[in-house]
Amino acid sequence: MADLLVIGCGLIGASVGMAMRQAGRDVLLADELPSTTGTAVRRGAGRPWDGSEEATVALIAVPPRRTASVLVELQSLDVARTYTHVASVQSQVQREIEALSQTPSVVLGGHPLAGRERSGPLAAAADLFVGRPWAICAGKDTGATAHADVRALVLDVGADPVELTAEAHDAAVAVLSHLPQLVSSALAATLVTDGSRGAVEPGLRLAGPGVVDTTRLAASDPELWVQILELNAHELAPIAKAAGTRLTAAAEALEALAGPAAPRAQAQATATLRDLLRLGNAGRALVPVKRGAREDAFALVRVTVSDEPGRLAALLTDAGAAGVNVEDVHVEHVPGRPTGVIELLVGRPDVGRLYSALDARGWLVMEPDATDGQRDLSR
Amino acid sequence: MADLLVIGCGLIGASVGMAMRQAGRDVLLADELPSTTGTAVRRGAGRPWDGSEEATVALIAVPPRRTASVLVELQSLDVARTYTHVASVQSQVQREIEALSQTPSVVLGGHPLAGRERSGPLAAAADLFVGRPWAICAGKDTGATAHADVRALVLDVGADPVELTAEAHDAAVAVLSHLPQLVSSALAATLVTDGSRGAVEPGLRLAGPGVVDTTRLAASDPELWVQILELNAHELAPIAKAAGTRLTAAAEALEALAGPAAPRAQAQATATLRDLLRLGNAGRALVPVKRGAREDAFALVRVTVSDEPGRLAALLTDAGAAGVNVEDVHVEHVPGRPTGVIELLVGRPDVGRLYSALDARGWLVMEPDATDGQRDLSR
Repeated sequence: MADLLVIGCGLIGASVGMAMRQAGRDVLLADELPSTTGTAVRRGAGRPWDGSEEATVALIAVPPRRTASVLVELQSLDVARTYTHVASVQSQVQREIEALSQTPSVVLGGHPLAGRERSGPLAAAADLFVGRPWAICAGKDTGATAHADVRALVLDVGADPVELTAEAHDAAVAVLSHLPQLVSSALAATLVTDGSRGAVEPGLRLAGPGVVDTTRLAASDPELWVQILELNAHELAPIAKAAGTRLTAAAEALEALAGPAAPRAQAQATATLRDLLRLGNAGRALVPVKRGAREDAFALVRVTVSDEPGRLAALLTDAGAAGVNVEDVHVEHVPGRPTGVIELLVGRPDVGRLYSALDARGWLVMEPDATDGQRDLSR
Repeated sequence: MADLLVIGCGLIGASVGMAMRQAGRDVLLADELPSTTGTAVRRGAGRPWDGSEEATVALIAVPPRRTASVLVELQSLDVARTYTHVASVQSQVQREIEALSQTPSVVLGGHPLAGRERSGPLAAAADLFVGRPWAICAGKDTGATAHADVRALVLDVGADPVELTAEAHDAAVAVLSHLPQLVSSALAATLVTDGSRGAVEPGLRLAGPGVVDTTRLAASDPELWVQILELNAHELAPIAKAAGTRLTAAAEALEALAGPAAPRAQAQATATLRDLLRLGNAGRALVPVKRGAREDAFALVRVTVSDEPGRLAALLTDAGAAGVNVEDVHVEHVPGRPTGVIELLVGRPDVGRLYSALDARGWLVMEPDATDGQRDLSR
């Protein structure tokens, strides 16, 4: 008996296969297109399934609209002890499975929060899930064995299992993934409109980290995202409307401030903007930025360096020698000049020690009393 | 004669002083509060101005609403050859100066695109402007000497001079800085609303880089940003309205898809979402992400490592030994496990060489044919 049977050898299915192979597991692969199965086999994701060999877990990695029917059809063949899937929206698939399946106790839905721009087995990677959350959504009938089997799979591929209901999952991804996508697209789309007025192009050199970070998601594949947004339309519609209403209210406040409004209307407009910015502060404070911790658990140490190969490595060697684990790094180059700034994100308790160690070794470090607790919000 | 006279010793004024001192220049400092001048002097930003000593350049770093009057008053004392300022919105200040000044030929507006959450001279840093754009907005009367003086100042503090008209500046920062701020705040504010429904908190562990990056600006200081948004209300209002309208249209399309709409209405709703996502692609493609270059100039190389001090340094040492300059680094930890993934951003031509070098030294590198050209858009 194999450890895993993967049905659907696209990006996710093939990546799970590769990760499980790397963990030493025996993996069977199947896809409706034999050429796709062949590519996944050549990428090292497993061996072809003969249609009857059994596995401990069957993982269905086909498009969400087909997930339930493929899973239930596979169950009728009785080829696995546990059945799971990777649908990016969970509630609807769970309802379909509960309606169709004879043995829902061996089914447990899952959703790896990982992906990339390209799809298909050629884009697959054994490390795709490393460090990423993998939602596990038990149904009302799910049994303990199915639970343990899927948890083990998630840990084997290096992901972080997060258990919650299908409804909580769909609500969470609506606000944490689908709304950021919509908002990023709406923002980036506005750059194009403004470009047609000729105003942006000469000023593009003024672009800073703010616009770079807020428009990153706008590069996503439209065809894939239309499907995802549609599947979660029920959860996403009201929060997208709320965000749109907030932005429109801010725009109207700005119109009042730009025009010859009465002092009372101007004061009200200012209050509208201030309230939005304050509520934004409160929302941002909820977001876990690193290792599940909030922003204020970390601090930045800034170092000015010469912009040449090896300097970043030397800096991190010295940080490591001080026993400080660097959580993240940001490099800022100086266009046309031989210097740059490196920002090291470290746990707050390590700031003083890192500063002293780097300063002692001759690095040009910004004094920590001026950076402690400050996230650089430069534009 | 000193090199620079700084009027206003807040974050920007004191940082310019510190950067110029580090470049070996003689700097005079003044602030309406003597205690602020004293703090800036102690931070190494320069020496106190006696009210009469002359300087090559006078830099006015006071709030934008007071910039023109302070600058023109200073001109009447004839203490400098060239006068500049750092107002974050340029057109209005330029009009005021042109109306009030006897000698507008020696005036040239500027705006360093740099800042941080905290204000005041204690937050100042000599490296604040390193690698950042510094807009230079000549008026119709600005002469060559003023131009050369301000350009030299900008280069001395390590910034990247970007010359454009005051109107182009204000239009550019509206779309590249002020609109991203508003959109980020509106998005983060929606997390709070949803939190009150109890839906977000259990799912917060599903938060990925997407929501972290898109809500970063939402942590900005509301009082500071109300002022900035108000000053550029004229430019910002129409594009904020356009972004709000796009988001609302997407929300209405989602409502149609969530409800029992006719097939024709559903098809139209899908088209609305697809058009927004495609326009977002086009907008994102305009944004310079690194050294002024677009996203497709770079590629990511992903390496799985043990999560301990020194591994990042060792990896970058090996990358440096291969002669590859790493443009940026992203570290992804695995919660509760001793491994992580490091993403190295490098120029596209370096990808193959870096992969071979790291692979030869035993690093667990993802094959470049699977990453080449792919920006990881995992949520």
